[in-house]
Amino acid sequence: MEKTFSYDQLLTFSKNIFQKIGCSDTDAAIAAKALLSADLRGVDSHGVARLSGYVRLWEVKRVNSKPVLKIIHETPSTAVVDGDSGLGLVVAPYAMQVAIDKATNVGSGWVSVQNSNHFGIAGYHAMMALPHDMIGIAMTNASALVAPTFSTQRMLGTNPIAVAIPAGKEQPFVADFATTTASNGKLEILQRKNKPAPLGWVQTKNGEASSNANELKEGGAMLPLGGDREHGSHKGYMLGSIVDIFSGILSGANYGPWVPPFPSYVPMPQNMPGNGIGHFFGAMRIDAFRTAEDFKHHMDNWIQEFKKAKTTEGEDKVIIPGEPEREMEVYRMQQGIALNEVVANDLEELGKRFSVDMI
Amino acid sequence: MEKTFSYDQLLTFSKNIFQKIGCSDTDAAIAAKALLSADLRGVDSHGVARLSGYVRLWEVKRVNSKPVLKIIHETPSTAVVDGDSGLGLVVAPYAMQVAIDKATNVGSGWVSVQNSNHFGIAGYHAMMALPHDMIGIAMTNASALVAPTFSTQRMLGTNPIAVAIPAGKEQPFVADFATTTASNGKLEILQRKNKPAPLGWVQTKNGEASSNANELKEGGAMLPLGGDREHGSHKGYMLGSIVDIFSGILSGANYGPWVPPFPSYVPMPQNMPGNGIGHFFGAMRIDAFRTAEDFKHHMDNWIQEFKKAKTTEGEDKVIIPGEPEREMEVYRMQQGIALNEVVANDLEELGKRFSVDMI
Repeated sequence: MEKTFSYDQLLTFSKNIFQKIGCSDTDAAIAAKALLSADLRGVDSHGVARLSGYVRLWEVKRVNSKPVLKIIHETPSTAVVDGDSGLGLVVAPYAMQVAIDKATNVGSGWVSVQNSNHFGIAGYHAMMALPHDMIGIAMTNASALVAPTFSTQRMLGTNPIAVAIPAGKEQPFVADFATTTASNGKLEILQRKNKPAPLGWVQTKNGEASSNANELKEGGAMLPLGGDREHGSHKGYMLGSIVDIFSGILSGANYGPWVPPFPSYVPMPQNMPGNGIGHFFGAMRIDAFRTAEDFKHHMDNWIQEFKKAKTTEGEDKVIIPGEPEREMEVYRMQQGIALNEVVANDLEELGKRFSVDMI
Repeated sequence: MEKTFSYDQLLTFSKNIFQKIGCSDTDAAIAAKALLSADLRGVDSHGVARLSGYVRLWEVKRVNSKPVLKIIHETPSTAVVDGDSGLGLVVAPYAMQVAIDKATNVGSGWVSVQNSNHFGIAGYHAMMALPHDMIGIAMTNASALVAPTFSTQRMLGTNPIAVAIPAGKEQPFVADFATTTASNGKLEILQRKNKPAPLGWVQTKNGEASSNANELKEGGAMLPLGGDREHGSHKGYMLGSIVDIFSGILSGANYGPWVPPFPSYVPMPQNMPGNGIGHFFGAMRIDAFRTAEDFKHHMDNWIQEFKKAKTTEGEDKVIIPGEPEREMEVYRMQQGIALNEVVANDLEELGKRFSVDMI
């Protein structure tokens, strides 16, 4: 049985929980807003479903609820931010703001982050650039689930990339995608429904093609975008690697197989070469290239041209990146957010434990 | 029958041809070196095989052999370069140098280019950053051959992305890939051999799956990385779109279906909204984030860890991006570059016409 809550209910609830684990009012509000953006946009795997997961990371002291965020190295257009083991949901907006401030000053800003944790959906952070008439970029590494082409070993996370680009009359272009064939969230949906996965999503522990959605539990691995060599999986592997290096190695965070896991019960990797999880953010002022007016006029033209491109049989339109998520956001703001029973019960437990009511 | 030439022979020959069409000595040398880098690295489709194509573009006045390259807008970390219809092989190194200079000054440099032409392989330009201990990024849009997910219409080029990252004792990481399932060059190889293409590379003009390597000639389209929706083709579509927007819209070049074609006999698109082809370049100084020494130490660790990852049956190693191209470069520098008969004859014709000998 699904239960439906309003956005405000879940936002306030999450904020209160974050306060209970020691976050300041400001940080709790920032974290709750970032977290809920996933539910609003239909990325259910990354929203309140993970709230208790963040709490458990705090319990085992992998998350510091009172981080002192700081820039540890910078130039006019770049910086490295130390997240002090804070919630990625708090660290990422701070770092993205640094990128935006630098772009305001010198045209663009690029910030690599160490010592952070999972930051929710990448798209939320990238979209922070939009009201400033800037292009926003956000990426993060994550614990290893993905085998490179020709390998059976999990070496990379699903390492998502988000790029948000302002338009004029049209809605902004917002791409936000894992660098794997399918996100782990989509795999989890199939697991819950006991359904097979399309070939190309996962492989067995020996590297054979598999349609078992539970393959990860049996030592298998997710596959890079492309699926297999013949269909360009080396390109997905390269993309995931670039995200890993920009997020992990530029910053001094962990990388590759050493990125800390999200579930608190999974032991930390041995011999970790860096600090926490890494992210990478970018902001480019549109008018550092041409006037925002000209740019938006052409973005509108681009979007309109793609919207009216001829479709394949049975499809009614070509989708502009960000469109389905925005439609979901409008819908859920009005109609509320339906949570499945497991997640709803999880929140109820959490509320009881911390004496926080769902108002 | 293949014919083998030394690198120096083909370099000098190409340089002489570029001079004959009016390029200055300097520009001819720059263009020849960029062109030949494709042959050296094994990307035969983008090297001397295209020399006569560039000449034909000059003949129909789509290429200006005496361009005045200039920055038409800039901030400390960004610029827009006008390529004055020059050879992309000349425009791109100029623009990449602007990015490198800006990175030297303020940590990073980002340059969008309008009014250019095809620039050869993206990787060559990205790699210009390496000797400066910088990360280099290069991308370009190209004439539309690719249908977005759910569409039958060609809206995007194969829009490649290259990222070059310095390492220490290990060789640099160099990713360079089209944002399609397979590059057009690979498709051309199958066409020449009269072989079928794997499903997921192209579709028919009605959007049906096809293994006909000649599908483009029958109104079909190439497919974005991922191949179909279930395998993440929307991600390839998003990547290709980002390249298009960064290269075409930020700069004032053409974009989407309006990007000028490479073959001189293909008519120019109607109602073009910009100038020429667009590129986008980036350079980030490593020590704008952390010391180059630390970074390289961890890049070496990353590369070594990936190299020793367990392989699937029958494969002997996990490939580090850039490794096969570098091996090819070493081999061809020593053993020469074998050209197929069609290309060799084409060069012979070109030589006769311009009274240039293959020395």
